Amino acid sequence: MIDFYWGSGSPYSWRVHQTLEHKGVPYESKLLSFSAREHKSPEFLAVNPRGKVPAIVHGAVVVYESNACVRYLDRVFPDPPVFGATPAEEAEIVCRVSEIDNYLDHAHGATFRPLFFGRPQGHEDAIRAGLPALFAEIARWEAALEGKTFLVGERFSAADIALMPQVQNLLRTAAKPTSAPFDLGLLPLADRYPNLASWKTRIEAFDWFARTLPPHWSE
Amino acid sequence: MIDFYWGSGSPYSWRVHQTLEHKGVPYESKLLSFSAREHKSPEFLAVNPRGKVPAIVHGAVVVYESNACVRYLDRVFPDPPVFGATPAEEAEIVCRVSEIDNYLDHAHGATFRPLFFGRPQGHEDAIRAGLPALFAEIARWEAALEGKTFLVGERFSAADIALMPQVQNLLRTAAKPTSAPFDLGLLPLADRYPNLASWKTRIEAFDWFARTLPPHWSE
Repeated sequence: MIDFYWGSGSPYSWRVHQTLEHKGVPYESKLLSFSAREHKSPEFLAVNPRGKVPAIVHGAVVVYESNACVRYLDRVFPDPPVFGATPAEEAEIVCRVSEIDNYLDHAHGATFRPLFFGRPQGHEDAIRAGLPALFAEIARWEAALEGKTFLVGERFSAADIALMPQVQNLLRTAAKPTSAPFDLGLLPLADRYPNLASWKTRIEAFDWFARTLPPHWSE
Repeated sequence: MIDFYWGSGSPYSWRVHQTLEHKGVPYESKLLSFSAREHKSPEFLAVNPRGKVPAIVHGAVVVYESNACVRYLDRVFPDPPVFGATPAEEAEIVCRVSEIDNYLDHAHGATFRPLFFGRPQGHEDAIRAGLPALFAEIARWEAALEGKTFLVGERFSAADIALMPQVQNLLRTAAKPTSAPFDLGLLPLADRYPNLASWKTRIEAFDWFARTLPPHWSE
């Protein structure tokens, strides 16, 4: 049994959650409350001294940082694999994850944080200034999915796992009433970004996917 | 034969350079000039559409993003391994690399960029404000090396490969005359951070290490 420490809505937690569910790994959910600062409690700092989710504990092994958690799970529970079938596929998957970490996340964070939290007031100029870079990134991912079932190879992989929370968060943000004054051009996704839309539908069709949705989204 | 595209002083390029040399992989050096914008040339954009180094080309396989390059090289040239001997070691190595990417690099970039380029004028307050976070990071890495030969396990790994360019760049920055007005507290390293100092000496003792030093450092 694996103890899985996570936070609702954390895109990095969501990566590990998807990996556990996709592989059918038995785990005990340890949902930490960000508002109660449980990720900074002495108990959790003993797991991850940085006080960041996700983290997993498997017997004597403690792993944090989402990329390390996904890698560990793939090594210990190799079926189905999430790092491809060949060295070239694995490299492409690691590359895609790295691009999401280094470019999409940054473009998203800089522009979208005030919109994501529904408080764009006072940030309107910064948001409008950041949107072109964000949408250039989204266009790259739309293009990467052209003619493809999943991002790399024929299988759902760590690349899809990393992209999915970003896309979900973008769409949730776009649907907020406070986002209406901005021309985000994301909705309806099937019209604007058809490859991303059908890819998202395929992942949502996994019978386990709904179990990974952030619990506070249904409140 | 592998074509290795890189830039002098790029810490990400330096990771791949160390990996190639440590594994004894034959490669052809394709050193791109940042000042001549060769990383944005049509030829190189055909290799990496993002125009970023490093990148490697191995027959029909093109890999970019340093973490993907190191992973690919470890899959295709597994001896000596740089991702450990067990799933737990591998997870710890990936975790360390991720912490360098997500925390040390950010703390370093925010504070040190003006010092690194020898132009602190006008940035003094920002530099002084950022130093505590940077030195808290450095203290973590000093502690991580306590009683250890290398960061993870008994072998030189991708974690050491990722940390080494950061340490080298910090020391180079600290030694600049323009850094003198700031109390960086890094030099002499053996007095201030003895674990980092002896770890650095061990890596510099590899017969290949000097070949990876940024060429412009000896100009």
